[in-house]
Amino acid sequence: MRTHRKELWFNIPTRRAFLNITPQVEVCLRESGVKEGLALVNAMHITASVFINDDESGLHRDYEEWLERLAPHEPLDRYRHNLTGEDNGDAHLKRQVMGREVVVAITEGRLDFGPWEQIFYGEFDGRRKKRVLVKIIGE
Amino acid sequence: MRTHRKELWFNIPTRRAFLNITPQVEVCLRESGVKEGLALVNAMHITASVFINDDESGLHRDYEEWLERLAPHEPLDRYRHNLTGEDNGDAHLKRQVMGREVVVAITEGRLDFGPWEQIFYGEFDGRRKKRVLVKIIGE
Amino acid sequence: MRTHRKELWFNIPTRRAFLNITPQVEVCLRESGVKEGLALVNAMHITASVFINDDESGLHRDYEEWLERLAPHEPLDRYRHNLTGEDNGDAHLKRQVMGREVVVAITEGRLDFGPWEQIFYGEFDGRRKKRVLVKIIGE
Repeated sequence: MRTHRKELWFNIPTRRAFLNITPQVEVCLRESGVKEGLALVNAMHITASVFINDDESGLHRDYEEWLERLAPHEPLDRYRHNLTGEDNGDAHLKRQVMGREVVVAITEGRLDFGPWEQIFYGEFDGRRKKRVLVKIIGE
Repeated sequence: MRTHRKELWFNIPTRRAFLNITPQVEVCLRESGVKEGLALVNAMHITASVFINDDESGLHRDYEEWLERLAPHEPLDRYRHNLTGEDNGDAHLKRQVMGREVVVAITEGRLDFGPWEQIFYGEFDGRRKKRVLVKIIGE
Repeated sequence: MRTHRKELWFNIPTRRAFLNITPQVEVCLRESGVKEGLALVNAMHITASVFINDDESGLHRDYEEWLERLAPHEPLDRYRHNLTGEDNGDAHLKRQVMGREVVVAITEGRLDFGPWEQIFYGEFDGRRKKRVLVKIIGE
């Protein structure tokens, strides 16, 4: 069994954003030499998500507005978590809706995807360095 | 290490539905010959889900109504994604709540489930052929 | 390839609670002897979650209130599922928001976590014995 590990680092200049990280995950997969197995891709921070959906800017704006309705950033005192001095209570909730991780099948050395599947990093509390873990196992 | 891959195809006649796919996943597991390992089951489309919950028709109607409240199908112009000519903006949101994938333990050649766990395909934009990937690794 | 399986049992005295189970998962990992691989941690019940987030009591109260807004426990007749004689319709919905499972990378014999990641059992219909499955594969 082979395993391969890599961290992808980001410094998103805005509080929230969605970033297509499929090309970086494909580079990890090539580096791993794994032809058959599984790739785990997870946010290492608890105010960010990794998820799979469509690379369409209108959809991303829909997600942004929808998440803001489900878990508004303000007023800050809406969240007890913000009593700790943080202002990211909403980000911990948004991340649960969008998810922490994806597991992707690897077949014949490629990410085994349907026609529109792309991997995104979802940032809900940016403006600082944060990272994603890629762990590949297989042979 | 053994791996096994199979696609399950569906053509749901309605826009939305929940389908118990546990028997098909069990067939894949028997075909794989894997006794100890992991099974990944994921929607290959971004307007559908794979999730684990109860096979109870009242619950499924509760899910349907709840998701429709969280992300209504209409009015279509509620979603920027629909400006692309699609009418499935809501389906991309519903899928995030219900999830893309499940990972299931395989123990002694069986899906290692609690008493009520069943695997479902959740369709949110049906009336066309779509598929689920089953990828099994182990030995 | 090595595999290791363990059930963690809980009997939460209240209907809802969040419990940090990271120490128990770390014990499983040590028992497994796996140095490189993946750990699957999943609720074996469909009214409970396993998720990764922050061990901060204010955040947990935010989750509690937020989930109660998204899927209120009462009135019980809000949910068709409760017509079966159950009173846990809401719990099946809350569990979908928080998720069934996490998959965690294992690197150099440790859970490969970012600075604040902790694994939680989320109970939404407690006051009885329920369990979580830990399945570890790797070498």
